[in-house]
Amino acid sequence: MNAVELIRRKREGKALASDEIAWLVRAYTQGDVPDYQMAAWLMAVVWRGMGRRETVALTSAMLRSGAELRVRDVLTPVADKHSTGGVGDKVTIAAAPLIAACGLPVAKMTGRGLGHTGGTVDKLESITGLRMDLRRASFLRILRRHGLALSAQSSELAPADGKMYALRDVTGTVDSIPLIAASIMSKKLAVGPSHLLLDVKVGSGAFMKTAAEARRLAETMVRLGEDAGVRTRAVLTSMEQPLGRAVGNALEVAEAVAILRGDGPEDVTTICLHEAATLLAMAGLVADEEEGMRRAEQAIRDGSALAKLAEVVAAQGGDAAQIADPARLPQAPHREMLSAPCAGYITAIDAERVGMASVHLGAGRLRKGDPIDPAVGLVLLAKVGERLTAGERLVEVHARSAADVVAVKDELLAAYTFDDSAPVTPPLLLGHVG
Amino acid sequence: MNAVELIRRKREGKALASDEIAWLVRAYTQGDVPDYQMAAWLMAVVWRGMGRRETVALTSAMLRSGAELRVRDVLTPVADKHSTGGVGDKVTIAAAPLIAACGLPVAKMTGRGLGHTGGTVDKLESITGLRMDLRRASFLRILRRHGLALSAQSSELAPADGKMYALRDVTGTVDSIPLIAASIMSKKLAVGPSHLLLDVKVGSGAFMKTAAEARRLAETMVRLGEDAGVRTRAVLTSMEQPLGRAVGNALEVAEAVAILRGDGPEDVTTICLHEAATLLAMAGLVADEEEGMRRAEQAIRDGSALAKLAEVVAAQGGDAAQIADPARLPQAPHREMLSAPCAGYITAIDAERVGMASVHLGAGRLRKGDPIDPAVGLVLLAKVGERLTAGERLVEVHARSAADVVAVKDELLAAYTFDDSAPVTPPLLLGHVG
Repeated sequence: MNAVELIRRKREGKALASDEIAWLVRAYTQGDVPDYQMAAWLMAVVWRGMGRRETVALTSAMLRSGAELRVRDVLTPVADKHSTGGVGDKVTIAAAPLIAACGLPVAKMTGRGLGHTGGTVDKLESITGLRMDLRRASFLRILRRHGLALSAQSSELAPADGKMYALRDVTGTVDSIPLIAASIMSKKLAVGPSHLLLDVKVGSGAFMKTAAEARRLAETMVRLGEDAGVRTRAVLTSMEQPLGRAVGNALEVAEAVAILRGDGPEDVTTICLHEAATLLAMAGLVADEEEGMRRAEQAIRDGSALAKLAEVVAAQGGDAAQIADPARLPQAPHREMLSAPCAGYITAIDAERVGMASVHLGAGRLRKGDPIDPAVGLVLLAKVGERLTAGERLVEVHARSAADVVAVKDELLAAYTFDDSAPVTPPLLLGHVG
Repeated sequence: MNAVELIRRKREGKALASDEIAWLVRAYTQGDVPDYQMAAWLMAVVWRGMGRRETVALTSAMLRSGAELRVRDVLTPVADKHSTGGVGDKVTIAAAPLIAACGLPVAKMTGRGLGHTGGTVDKLESITGLRMDLRRASFLRILRRHGLALSAQSSELAPADGKMYALRDVTGTVDSIPLIAASIMSKKLAVGPSHLLLDVKVGSGAFMKTAAEARRLAETMVRLGEDAGVRTRAVLTSMEQPLGRAVGNALEVAEAVAILRGDGPEDVTTICLHEAATLLAMAGLVADEEEGMRRAEQAIRDGSALAKLAEVVAAQGGDAAQIADPARLPQAPHREMLSAPCAGYITAIDAERVGMASVHLGAGRLRKGDPIDPAVGLVLLAKVGERLTAGERLVEVHARSAADVVAVKDELLAAYTFDDSAPVTPPLLLGHVG
């Protein structure tokens, strides 16, 4: 096979054969096809797209580039959930133990943050001692014993994705539905659950800006899952403003604990309960989602969901006392309240700007490998639709210093839009696929 | 500036500012922007195209990446001519001395062959001793003294083009009108003639497959030339079948000599005369093209054009006796005549296939740096529109061995299409731009 020929054919809008795609991914992963040829091919894919069969072939080639965990061979049913990422998205930290507490094991491998969205690994690592770099044997042992394991994505799974994603990141080739779908699904299929729920975020703070785009991505991923024998559904949820109130690593863990105690913000609690109910129904552990919802609410009320999180944190070497009392989580030395600059309804909070303000405080990274500060971040005291008077409490900044607050203040306030009349609040749940 | 941002903007179909394009070309040439980012950007340009101002900026950035010869500061008027390349295209070898013999100096830098089309440098190097790697001072000295200098493209001129072309060649990003136009014109403007004639080939054997495409390329190049103060025109000529009868290095030099003696094939002689007439009229040395045509015919009849070729060959260290007697050019050890496999009219000769058969005999290269054999090649004894009986002489193969003829015979015969009725012969000259 010849890389230039495959680039040319894709450039002309032709479909590649499955074995051609398999060859290209293998040759690239082994270093036989150089970065510049893969970069040109990826841009041709962004341009021309890929058909269903081609996307299956790409996902499958990326999956076969490394080891497969196949957790469903160890334990079944076993669930996984994935979010395409957004600002303040701590759903996994609350929903995974909630689902596990309802009797459906959850095998969760997750990523680090880059740019305006945080990563679940970074958030969980704000718990003192917690090991997120589990090896295969530990991951499976903890999963079997506790019905829940949480780990950073293993570099042994779908290594082609790691190499291709790094290249896409520096060549402007991230925005492509087949490439995004293959990247996510190759990693999910390498873990190998029996049931998979995808949370595809839509809106100004998400990668998918419109519901139509998000639906196309969701449909592509659901098909890839089902074709590989994994029962897969997707839920589309709004990311027009940050999710919940906390943005920042330890602050988001504390909010996840609040959700599991029954006193979390309504929006993010609704998504957690909905995800749990959907997966319980998919796995046949409840008759329908309504019963799943009741089961999940019960697991919050009776404390079993929170106990499951503490149990797994302890099993992975973390300080469970920080789950029992989130005040023990890392605390920023400087807290400062920013007030509403004017009176009126909040009609919009730009999630991307809020995310970048948090990154600039030190909660996230601009470049891979940048260090992060677990304690810093933001607590949004008012959300879209609330009416404030001028000078009322708007957002609490948790920072390393007063100077850091000054540095982000303008950017942060610019994320807010105020108006005299109340906005129409968009629904949080925008639909299902699968 | 940030390469990813420029890639993204081009991917979204937006125009880049001139200083952004200048930065990108400079950073790439200096090695600050890696191949993989340039490859992604080039594919985005293939996809989205470039506006007029962007194409000017790209050409100008490539031009400024190296030295400028500006021959028009040394001698004026001074002409250059460029062909986009085809099979059997020996026009430069005959037309350049023809034009110079009519009183218009020609400063010609030219390229090596790659793939199915040959290169003028390779063809001329079949003349024993001829130096084609002239340094700046020698090139200008020979040009001033003889009104004609022929050299391989200097690597000091537009070095960004060399680096970008090598990358385009291996990333499927050759086929783009603004990229082709900027590549050609940056090199032509670096030589800096006062008058430039472009021969844009159209047809199955050329890069431009349709007249519409060829016209767009010609218009883009003519504008780039005129914007830079060079009087520029383009002629569109047909490349549906090989040009003339000879394909191969020494064989094409011999055919160029035949043209200058007045007994060359009609098609290629017509193009040489037409190019000479056009440039003479452009430079104001004749009243119009009709007078130019008479002047050029005269220079063939009186032997001054052939004498000019011999004079410059000698000045550049070559054996002028081979021009006086082309039988002294390198001769292949094995000649074999292939006959028409059936009776009928020749309705098509696939130039690309003929070109590849010649490459496989050793006359051209598949990869840069491959050695070539000056003596081997083909002489097409019948062209499109001629009627043959089965077994009549079709093509004479000049090869290193009988085995080499066997190896290319099927490919070569497959280039011919025979039919019972006479084809409509397409015109050779398809139009002008500028």
